[in-house]
Amino acid sequence: MKSLFLETNECYDGSQLTSLRNYLKFGILGDSIVSWIGPCHVTPEHMVDGEDLLAHAEIRGEKMLHFIVELFDSSLFAAVGIQRLLAAIVRDSLRSASTKTALVNQLTRDGDDIFCDDGKLSISIATQSPNSSLIHFAVNVVNRGTPVRTISLEEFGVEPVVFAKTVMDRFVQEVNSIREATRKVRWAR
Amino acid sequence: MKSLFLETNECYDGSQLTSLRNYLKFGILGDSIVSWIGPCHVTPEHMVDGEDLLAHAEIRGEKMLHFIVELFDSSLFAAVGIQRLLAAIVRDSLRSASTKTALVNQLTRDGDDIFCDDGKLSISIATQSPNSSLIHFAVNVVNRGTPVRTISLEEFGVEPVVFAKTVMDRFVQEVNSIREATRKVRWAR
Amino acid sequence: MKSLFLETNECYDGSQLTSLRNYLKFGILGDSIVSWIGPCHVTPEHMVDGEDLLAHAEIRGEKMLHFIVELFDSSLFAAVGIQRLLAAIVRDSLRSASTKTALVNQLTRDGDDIFCDDGKLSISIATQSPNSSLIHFAVNVVNRGTPVRTISLEEFGVEPVVFAKTVMDRFVQEVNSIREATRKVRWAR
Amino acid sequence: MKSLFLETNECYDGSQLTSLRNYLKFGILGDSIVSWIGPCHVTPEHMVDGEDLLAHAEIRGEKMLHFIVELFDSSLFAAVGIQRLLAAIVRDSLRSASTKTALVNQLTRDGDDIFCDDGKLSISIATQSPNSSLIHFAVNVVNRGTPVRTISLEEFGVEPVVFAKTVMDRFVQEVNSIREATRKVRWAR
Amino acid sequence: MKSLFLETNECYDGSQLTSLRNYLKFGILGDSIVSWIGPCHVTPEHMVDGEDLLAHAEIRGEKMLHFIVELFDSSLFAAVGIQRLLAAIVRDSLRSASTKTALVNQLTRDGDDIFCDDGKLSISIATQSPNSSLIHFAVNVVNRGTPVRTISLEEFGVEPVVFAKTVMDRFVQEVNSIREATRKVRWAR
Amino acid sequence: MKSLFLETNECYDGSQLTSLRNYLKFGILGDSIVSWIGPCHVTPEHMVDGEDLLAHAEIRGEKMLHFIVELFDSSLFAAVGIQRLLAAIVRDSLRSASTKTALVNQLTRDGDDIFCDDGKLSISIATQSPNSSLIHFAVNVVNRGTPVRTISLEEFGVEPVVFAKTVMDRFVQEVNSIREATRKVRWAR
Repeated sequence: MKSLFLETNECYDGSQLTSLRNYLKFGILGDSIVSWIGPCHVTPEHMVDGEDLLAHAEIRGEKMLHFIVELFDSSLFAAVGIQRLLAAIVRDSLRSASTKTALVNQLTRDGDDIFCDDGKLSISIATQSPNSSLIHFAVNVVNRGTPVRTISLEEFGVEPVVFAKTVMDRFVQEVNSIREATRKVRWAR
Repeated sequence: MKSLFLETNECYDGSQLTSLRNYLKFGILGDSIVSWIGPCHVTPEHMVDGEDLLAHAEIRGEKMLHFIVELFDSSLFAAVGIQRLLAAIVRDSLRSASTKTALVNQLTRDGDDIFCDDGKLSISIATQSPNSSLIHFAVNVVNRGTPVRTISLEEFGVEPVVFAKTVMDRFVQEVNSIREATRKVRWAR
Repeated sequence: MKSLFLETNECYDGSQLTSLRNYLKFGILGDSIVSWIGPCHVTPEHMVDGEDLLAHAEIRGEKMLHFIVELFDSSLFAAVGIQRLLAAIVRDSLRSASTKTALVNQLTRDGDDIFCDDGKLSISIATQSPNSSLIHFAVNVVNRGTPVRTISLEEFGVEPVVFAKTVMDRFVQEVNSIREATRKVRWAR
Repeated sequence: MKSLFLETNECYDGSQLTSLRNYLKFGILGDSIVSWIGPCHVTPEHMVDGEDLLAHAEIRGEKMLHFIVELFDSSLFAAVGIQRLLAAIVRDSLRSASTKTALVNQLTRDGDDIFCDDGKLSISIATQSPNSSLIHFAVNVVNRGTPVRTISLEEFGVEPVVFAKTVMDRFVQEVNSIREATRKVRWAR
Repeated sequence: MKSLFLETNECYDGSQLTSLRNYLKFGILGDSIVSWIGPCHVTPEHMVDGEDLLAHAEIRGEKMLHFIVELFDSSLFAAVGIQRLLAAIVRDSLRSASTKTALVNQLTRDGDDIFCDDGKLSISIATQSPNSSLIHFAVNVVNRGTPVRTISLEEFGVEPVVFAKTVMDRFVQEVNSIREATRKVRWAR
Repeated sequence: MKSLFLETNECYDGSQLTSLRNYLKFGILGDSIVSWIGPCHVTPEHMVDGEDLLAHAEIRGEKMLHFIVELFDSSLFAAVGIQRLLAAIVRDSLRSASTKTALVNQLTRDGDDIFCDDGKLSISIATQSPNSSLIHFAVNVVNRGTPVRTISLEEFGVEPVVFAKTVMDRFVQEVNSIREATRKVRWAR
């Protein structure tokens, strides 16, 4: 699995959650994770989360740290599991990166969401294209422009670019070792 | 997904990692997690982890808290991801359950292993039978009888039965919400 | 599996055979069957049955009882099998519901079609979306507006709303017990 | 799909539900259904139905009409659906073949079981081998030697060999048309 | 598997690589290969090969022998393997059909490409639709209108229509025997 | 994909066609091909080819060059396709390696078999284990001990160890590029 931090400040509007994008735009072949910092404004036509569509939710933020993952030879069931591991890695990495102990101790993961007390740190969705699984995960860099009460990396005193690379490194290691684990176990009866 | 704490002190020898066991022995149909406290001594014939087989590893412990998970409509790739979420849940639950702050702050998850400093808290394997995915996860209740340097629930001052139920509750909720998440997302291009 | 009778008289034009519709419009999560009474006029752009397309068939009826089924974790091969079970259930339910013995004794199922002598009672198609299987099944409530010789619930003296609920109940029970059957059988060599 | 009536009176003990048997014993390649008349006595070691195992059920009959189906490129979910279509075909064929109107009108299908009033006509199981789906379906030819109240072809005045061929013909036609149906439908969104 | 040589000189522009086309246009149900002679000009919107898209490649030829294959119950991984067998068959058939020994001895297959010295004989792509695998393979009939150095059937003195039929016959036989091979082997541990 | 030439003269008796063997015996993780030179004598209990079993075939040779391939995330359908590519690679490599032009020009591939005139050069089988695909391919090094008319590397004047490495190199490159090809193509409608 490959990773790349992108020097762009592109707005994430949902259209980026498309198969092969990491290959066709950045030449990264196979399982991959890319990351960049930019606004977030998901338009209804690109909204894939049925729950958000039912609730007419707004998905917005002025400055977020985005991750997009593409996995091949994966089902949606597997991808949602891995999405949640990504949430767990983000939370663990934030705990290590931040010196704000009081805040850090309130970090909880609920499914694919990370909260700190009643502030929402992140948004995420996992979906399936006809040839791959796709995950979007984004963390608030600042709290501006978000439709609900949020918390952001700023309050944790965490620099987003370094953080992005730490998260991607751990995630790549996690997915690689999951793939390996499927090739070294004998089947059971 | 259903869960059950078993009032037994059966030794886990690896033969329990068999498809349909939770149904055929306990009448639990479908996705399930069961748990009990007992010794652990995995004999080579039931050892499915190729890495352990290559290393002639010993898998032993005098008293461990065992979890066995069975998942249907799942690939091994998905099951390994979910095994690691179980590890994350065990670690988070231990952090909440224990008052030994110094110890708790040293808890780390590395793939499917949980460590506290250089002590190993747990063992785990995920495998596939022809009709389901199977996971064994076990946590030392005491340190006796283990072939490597370990740490145990005893040192964390955590009562294993209550702990087992907490872990199973969180895990059931996690897997249920993963299944749901696969049924409410639109596919992407 | 959930079911819902819809108080609408929407025309079925084929656009309704779309993944997640039952969730996004009616909040029904997971495997589902919905039913309503309304006209039928499938436009070529929404026609998915290649045989109909090749034959330039017209798919029309002034008043039909529609069923739409969505199944997750299912292949098209499985879905076509289940579509035919739905046809069998419709026929059996009609036999029970109607007192017109002479007519009832002429009811036959041929694949996914139900005939009574040379009158066609129903139309149906099963297809696959990238994340689910989809089935449309519709029974004539009256014979008006149909392009071939048809027979309808009217001639059987059967009230369509009660009939719809009976069919849905039996179908839900059938699919649930099929799912269960896949979780309680040992694999064979 | 191919079919063959076997001139044997072999006892069905469950060992016959093995992948490739129709090919390795009778040279029939691919999807197949075979049939023969013989006793039935399934020993626990070959019992694959977990429900029967849990209930310590006896599966016996002195003279039954057996069908064994093997399907390739099929999941267990699909196979259970098709098993029930086989049950529906058996019931429909019996209705056509028998002149005992009173009895015939009491025939009902409940999942994979066929009943006539409170008499059980048939037994069945569908399972999965690592390379195919397998179905056993058997109908009592006489009532002797059965552990529950049964009904048999004898009471319906139906000759089993002709009946077997009729059932196999309809089943082959059903499965062939299901396969075809998966190759002529456009996918949906 | 069925084959058909088409009496058309349609330009291949990439839009032909669509599921069910062989059925919906020519009535050929199931696995199929069709062939015709015509120009080639793939427009970017119908270009599915990411490598070509990244390289802004031109895919053109004034007169090519086209093959389109559709395979059901197949993964993309399987389809790419079979695409390369098609390339191997084209090369072998050309070797047999041509009397230009010097040229023929320089024919090499590199993945899905066939070269003769530094001249490219063919272009090809394999992709997946939501309900089938699709392969396009085309051989230059003449060298005109191609964006790179090519070689063509003309130089080999090979008549394209006869050649097309030979290739299709061998390919049909190959795929049929592959399907059969999956139904006559016992599974391994 | 990894390859390894083994310094052993072990007799291939069919027991070697077992999942994870390349990992558990040689530490090679993931897709792999190994090769060695040794006798061949497949006992009926390890014979997986149903055709051989039906024909009571003998599978023997005094000295053969064996290849065993293990592929993960692969179906049997894909594996049989890749087995035939291996046959094509063996034939092409032999053509390049040998200076016996007359013989070389008679080499033909028929499915997974390679013939030279009426002499059989090779034997092969592809099968599926519950967690991988497995291929055995073997080429006669000498003609002794074979039950049918054979031809061998000796007659081609080809040194088997160098030949084995050439074949494995080409095969690894082929499979790697097939995997890559599945990750760089856009899906089709």
